[in-house]
Amino acid sequence: MARKTDAPSERTRLRRVHERGHFDAASIYAVLDAMPLCHVGYQLDGAPVVTPTMQWREGDHVYWHGSSASRFLRAAEANQACLTVTLWDGMVMARSGFHHSANYRSCMVFGEAEIIKRPGDKEARLKAMFDVWFPGRWDMLRAMNDKELKATTVLRLPLDEASVKIRTGPPVDDEEDYELPIWAGVVPMTTTTGRPIDDPRNHAGLTAPDHAANFKAG
Amino acid sequence: MARKTDAPSERTRLRRVHERGHFDAASIYAVLDAMPLCHVGYQLDGAPVVTPTMQWREGDHVYWHGSSASRFLRAAEANQACLTVTLWDGMVMARSGFHHSANYRSCMVFGEAEIIKRPGDKEARLKAMFDVWFPGRWDMLRAMNDKELKATTVLRLPLDEASVKIRTGPPVDDEEDYELPIWAGVVPMTTTTGRPIDDPRNHAGLTAPDHAANFKAG
Repeated sequence: MARKTDAPSERTRLRRVHERGHFDAASIYAVLDAMPLCHVGYQLDGAPVVTPTMQWREGDHVYWHGSSASRFLRAAEANQACLTVTLWDGMVMARSGFHHSANYRSCMVFGEAEIIKRPGDKEARLKAMFDVWFPGRWDMLRAMNDKELKATTVLRLPLDEASVKIRTGPPVDDEEDYELPIWAGVVPMTTTTGRPIDDPRNHAGLTAPDHAANFKAG
Repeated sequence: MARKTDAPSERTRLRRVHERGHFDAASIYAVLDAMPLCHVGYQLDGAPVVTPTMQWREGDHVYWHGSSASRFLRAAEANQACLTVTLWDGMVMARSGFHHSANYRSCMVFGEAEIIKRPGDKEARLKAMFDVWFPGRWDMLRAMNDKELKATTVLRLPLDEASVKIRTGPPVDDEEDYELPIWAGVVPMTTTTGRPIDDPRNHAGLTAPDHAANFKAG
């Protein structure tokens, strides 16, 4: 993916606060790779629908999956979609209401959703999903069967129409407001990964493998 | 808001895994009140756009705001929108790839976005936003001026077309797969609120007020 400094399309162009915008591959990868949770927007019967799901990245595509029975995923094929990943890093508290803000890193990906059709390709993408989140786990699992593969839809968007927005740091107040004796600052927010919780039905003696103990997001 | 046990509309009806669905006010309030971060879906030039922003609830409406210059917010007026709040509670790791899942609480609100037009109403809603997140802060701030009020757009959706989905607990595997000696369990994810960070330009001796020190989300 080329290192871009300008918006790749009209709809990714940032109209406001454009100094927060980034369009290069490293910035896009960094946000997508930090947070599997995403929100995908579809159009269904002429209205927008925003569903939470988990995304993973392979090269210059972002992937997600779900049930083949999902009306959202079925509606997505060859239609425009928007996939957004957001890391909320803090509440920014200023000296005026107007300059309150949030610290965050977000990535928006626009494009035509493509459904991965060939069963071999689909299974390869699902294995890749495990390789991203839980390296080594795929080969430890009971193998996927044809019925499960049919029941699963895998979709992707290319990353050639993506933008990142980042805000960091303290509030930025109107210069004259700094004279006011009002506390200002940031309340930081983070995503925390806990220690794995064993399934009560695990066989005795099984302990969480490294790919579970080392999983991190945020 | 009436206590509903059935989906209030066709598009809020859960077609799959419907035992995860909730439509009563208490369930809807609980998710919205736990997490200000939301993702709002609009339609812009015939394609969906998903933008992260912060929501707050007053009674049976969910509100959000932004710059009056935002093309998304301008496009929202009297158009269909979908506002989704998601708390990601964990990765659910099963004995087969197919039964991996996520624990989460999510709320989707569908409807026609309404822009709050009267300046007095708009300011009252912004004060209410502070009362929800940072009780007492509004009256400590430099007062909002007309220019700032004009530059801010406040929108809302009624909660009469909303649904909640919740998944909790360990993986649910195919019964025969429990015989396999494969570790399964949950990697819990939480949103953590940190201690307030003082703005380096604060006056000497100012300490974070309770509304900053006690802010919590997640």
